[in-house]
Amino acid sequence: MKAVKKILENNKSGKFVCVGLDSDLKKLPEILKNDKDAVFKFNSEIIEATKDYAAAYKINFAFYEQNGSKGLSELEKTVELIPGNILSIADAKRGDIGNTSEMYARSVFEHFRFDAVTLNPYMGKDSLQPFLDYSDKLNFVLVLTSNPGANDFEKLILNDGKFVYQRILKSVNQWNENHNCGIVFGATKLEELKSNIKDFGELTVLLPGVGAQGGSMPDVKKVFKDNKRENFIVNVSRSIIYKSSDSDFAEAARSEIISLHQINN
Amino acid sequence: MKAVKKILENNKSGKFVCVGLDSDLKKLPEILKNDKDAVFKFNSEIIEATKDYAAAYKINFAFYEQNGSKGLSELEKTVELIPGNILSIADAKRGDIGNTSEMYARSVFEHFRFDAVTLNPYMGKDSLQPFLDYSDKLNFVLVLTSNPGANDFEKLILNDGKFVYQRILKSVNQWNENHNCGIVFGATKLEELKSNIKDFGELTVLLPGVGAQGGSMPDVKKVFKDNKRENFIVNVSRSIIYKSSDSDFAEAARSEIISLHQINN
Repeated sequence: MKAVKKILENNKSGKFVCVGLDSDLKKLPEILKNDKDAVFKFNSEIIEATKDYAAAYKINFAFYEQNGSKGLSELEKTVELIPGNILSIADAKRGDIGNTSEMYARSVFEHFRFDAVTLNPYMGKDSLQPFLDYSDKLNFVLVLTSNPGANDFEKLILNDGKFVYQRILKSVNQWNENHNCGIVFGATKLEELKSNIKDFGELTVLLPGVGAQGGSMPDVKKVFKDNKRENFIVNVSRSIIYKSSDSDFAEAARSEIISLHQINN
Repeated sequence: MKAVKKILENNKSGKFVCVGLDSDLKKLPEILKNDKDAVFKFNSEIIEATKDYAAAYKINFAFYEQNGSKGLSELEKTVELIPGNILSIADAKRGDIGNTSEMYARSVFEHFRFDAVTLNPYMGKDSLQPFLDYSDKLNFVLVLTSNPGANDFEKLILNDGKFVYQRILKSVNQWNENHNCGIVFGATKLEELKSNIKDFGELTVLLPGVGAQGGSMPDVKKVFKDNKRENFIVNVSRSIIYKSSDSDFAEAARSEIISLHQINN
């Protein structure tokens, strides 16, 4: 199934929550910490507990790569646990010269078999082309990110009066010939979301920053509802997966995703 | 030893070549292709053959990650082969929100034990801060890249008449409190190199793009000599490591780095 269809169908069922599996060994519940497969077991229980309400799972490579080959082995096994009707996102923020990006695209889509990836646009179109060539996948290009540093360069003003991020948004719309592009737009940037949503075109939107970073799920959902627009997912990582640090962590994660799922403006 | 000192000392000995270990299983010499440790053995022979003339080795993660945990295991073993007086660079183009960049910095500097890393500035200062906090390491921030797509966003013109990449160059100079910052500046962008080198300050410069991408080693060296400036390395990947696809690949790589090393304008 084309990756974007997974989002559209989950949205139709009222599912908008993307669960971020930022699973850091140091933050896992005590009962798992001495297990040699702790991260994998944690992910396995979190996925099982949340899959009825999740529209997507997002795996940030950083949390796995820090443990080298062992970490990537846990990542490989985790991807296999994600049910086929739920979008799997490699949050890897890739972008490199052409022949290198080909390797990264092969890594993410063929080796790890993700449905989607996050991409960094700084190096321009040819640095992302190998990803865009996978027409059944979904490519979320960074436009306006959720962190404070988004002000440093993304919000520089160009000589035509537009912000850098707005120029990138325009380009991603132009790159969408295969209907496989999306954007990352920070849930913490509500005013910018309101003023730019009319230019999102048919792009799928991934909004990180709800929870620990301060973004609000009801606020984000309201903007999309007011604009009669679906085709989006809101990522929540720490406030779901670390809701409880006790043995009830999976139940607590389930309760949290249910309450986020039920928010309806 | 502080990473930047390795560059300065190698420069003093007339060494400016960085060897890019973009080792792709599909491009290895026939005699290695059926070996289960082909990439590691290839890297091992290339390092042995070139180490007398190399100022640095740069390892692009893409070529290893495409083989998942097995690939990272080969990467782990390769880093250990790099002699202590030669700079090791993780070409990973990282940059993410703060708590995630912490994991990436830990991965590159503590798990893999590289001396240096390449970073993507798009998400702003806080996305790179965890790397900048490692005061003995060296952080090469992308400024103007060697690929054609550098024109797409890096060369957008801001409302003060400067290019986006020039604003980033200015910021990296400001971030250099720990004297551990550098920049990536494409060797294919000779005119921009000439007109911006006066603003490089004390930043170490990594110049990719010589060889397969069309940049010229004599031209680049001449610009630095004309400006009475050292503290730079020029990366060459494919035209060294794939100089020969026969059993003499290591000797051919050695001849090639010697001829690049001897260029002196």
